[in-house]
Amino acid sequence: MTTVAAYAAPAAKAPLERTTIERRAVGEFDVLIDVKFAGICHSDIHQAREGWGTAIFPMVPGHEIAGVVSEVGPGVTKYAVGDRVGVGCMVDSCRACDNCRAGLQQYCVKRPTWTYNDVDKDGEPTYGGYSEKIVVDENYVVRIPDGLSLDVAAPLLCAGITTYSPLRHWNVGPGKKVAVVGFGGLGHMGVKIAHALGAEVTVLSQSLRKQDDGRRLGADHYHATSDPETFEKLKGTFDVILNTVSAPFDFAPFLALLRTGGAMVNVGLPEEPVEITLSSLFGNRRSVTSSNIGGIPETQEMLDFCAEHGLGAEIELIRADEINEAYERVLVSDVRYRFVIDATTI
Amino acid sequence: MTTVAAYAAPAAKAPLERTTIERRAVGEFDVLIDVKFAGICHSDIHQAREGWGTAIFPMVPGHEIAGVVSEVGPGVTKYAVGDRVGVGCMVDSCRACDNCRAGLQQYCVKRPTWTYNDVDKDGEPTYGGYSEKIVVDENYVVRIPDGLSLDVAAPLLCAGITTYSPLRHWNVGPGKKVAVVGFGGLGHMGVKIAHALGAEVTVLSQSLRKQDDGRRLGADHYHATSDPETFEKLKGTFDVILNTVSAPFDFAPFLALLRTGGAMVNVGLPEEPVEITLSSLFGNRRSVTSSNIGGIPETQEMLDFCAEHGLGAEIELIRADEINEAYERVLVSDVRYRFVIDATTI
Repeated sequence: MTTVAAYAAPAAKAPLERTTIERRAVGEFDVLIDVKFAGICHSDIHQAREGWGTAIFPMVPGHEIAGVVSEVGPGVTKYAVGDRVGVGCMVDSCRACDNCRAGLQQYCVKRPTWTYNDVDKDGEPTYGGYSEKIVVDENYVVRIPDGLSLDVAAPLLCAGITTYSPLRHWNVGPGKKVAVVGFGGLGHMGVKIAHALGAEVTVLSQSLRKQDDGRRLGADHYHATSDPETFEKLKGTFDVILNTVSAPFDFAPFLALLRTGGAMVNVGLPEEPVEITLSSLFGNRRSVTSSNIGGIPETQEMLDFCAEHGLGAEIELIRADEINEAYERVLVSDVRYRFVIDATTI
Repeated sequence: MTTVAAYAAPAAKAPLERTTIERRAVGEFDVLIDVKFAGICHSDIHQAREGWGTAIFPMVPGHEIAGVVSEVGPGVTKYAVGDRVGVGCMVDSCRACDNCRAGLQQYCVKRPTWTYNDVDKDGEPTYGGYSEKIVVDENYVVRIPDGLSLDVAAPLLCAGITTYSPLRHWNVGPGKKVAVVGFGGLGHMGVKIAHALGAEVTVLSQSLRKQDDGRRLGADHYHATSDPETFEKLKGTFDVILNTVSAPFDFAPFLALLRTGGAMVNVGLPEEPVEITLSSLFGNRRSVTSSNIGGIPETQEMLDFCAEHGLGAEIELIRADEINEAYERVLVSDVRYRFVIDATTI
């Protein structure tokens, strides 16, 4: 066991504060990682405030982790001390079910062990990346290619894979038109990746406030959803709508923007159910669907793709003592486009 | 113009009664069909009772039409007098949009001309199959193969294609597990077709009342949705759930029956919106989707497939003066499994 400094929420809705946690001893297949950077994901806030149901406290959030290997267990074959690595939303899964064997650990039928707000196989709570160090089984660690700086790579571990996986699964590429709803942490990565995949990319954001950024990052078109004309003009346009907004809203006008056979893929999770009129799917064989991060092999593939295309996240680097303020700013969408904690300040 | 006998609803919710209607003169590309049999689809009742919004009266329902060609226009190349033919839910479409050119006339972007309760390109109301004769452009007529009796073929024009198209589109076949929700007019054809496609077929019906029929028609398993254990036992089982029920119900327990990547395809259209919790899709990349009949080429393919596999509908043949009584029985699911009107009695 190693005692390390971390930032934790002591209880639901309480501000995060500096504390110490215990990390397990490095086991046979474990990698000890010196955390260098940790992204702040909107879901950190949902969970720290118990928006998605009962949570485990104290909670050390953080599942966008980039760091350097500082020790490896005797059985580790994939990583060596000094390697630049990342950890995302999962730190384990059953490894035996069809999904795990297919590399879709995120859909493990016994469910994955989440990086924080969960209980590990040893019965201990998991603690995330807002901490100096983390110990993770090598099978749930990915390599950060040399071409990517660790700070802009950190958010790829959630925001990157969460958008990459559905864009790939629903065949976004040359000749396809994709709309990205919401232009925040997830949305800006969705735009970059969809553009790099060769698709024609449209941002659908509440206002045109971030239009210049959108175009700079790869959007071919940028429309305000506050303008009813947007929904008139774009009817029947998109093969895929990637919805990154986790606040609930009326899906009907968005579904009407899909072409025949199009899919609205939801990666933001509203805390409330949404109402869907089936007739808005019926007349065009449209789908409403959802996608959760990606598997470990696909996460590695995404990092390699991002390195090849020079895609990191757009970040605002903060000190650890600015986390609570950053949370408030995320809640009002005042971040361009991801806060990343400099872990040396923890 | 030809005056023909028909059964029509004179107004919303009024009983159907015998009347006469005018059919247009046989045009250059038209086929005059002596209707032999017309199926009664649940959607006939929805429309005759204005359940799906404002309708056009008098209304002659019927979009499951089987008959014999008795006259052809001078430009007709596909059909000759004496041919056994069918007409389904559409009698025209724009013919120019991407979907029409791809043979997906049911998703015509200018929307198809429906067989009844619609207005044709000539500005006249369309009247359906509860009539002695119908005039249809040859491009919206399909051939009924010799191996199929006209009476059991009639329901294939809606119930057959409505289940065949999604089963094919979502790749139901050997090695796949499909659940058919509801075992009525659509459901019993879904079972027959999914079985003939080589899938493992489960019926999910309210009770076990029709279990023997289900197994006889091709179901490998039959479960009652009134039994909570059904939902425990079958979690994560199905690649595709074909929902044929048009009454609204709670989707959540059904979505939990899908495997990773599975799709719940709705072909029954509730009159009210359904509530969906996105988290029931998120954890397994599941989809909620819908499908509307099929295109003209696929309808022909379906008829050929059904003839090859000896699949007709299970029917109760009625006289035209029994239509109103049949409607009441359809509403309480008291039909095994499709009423078909003997058009010689109109």
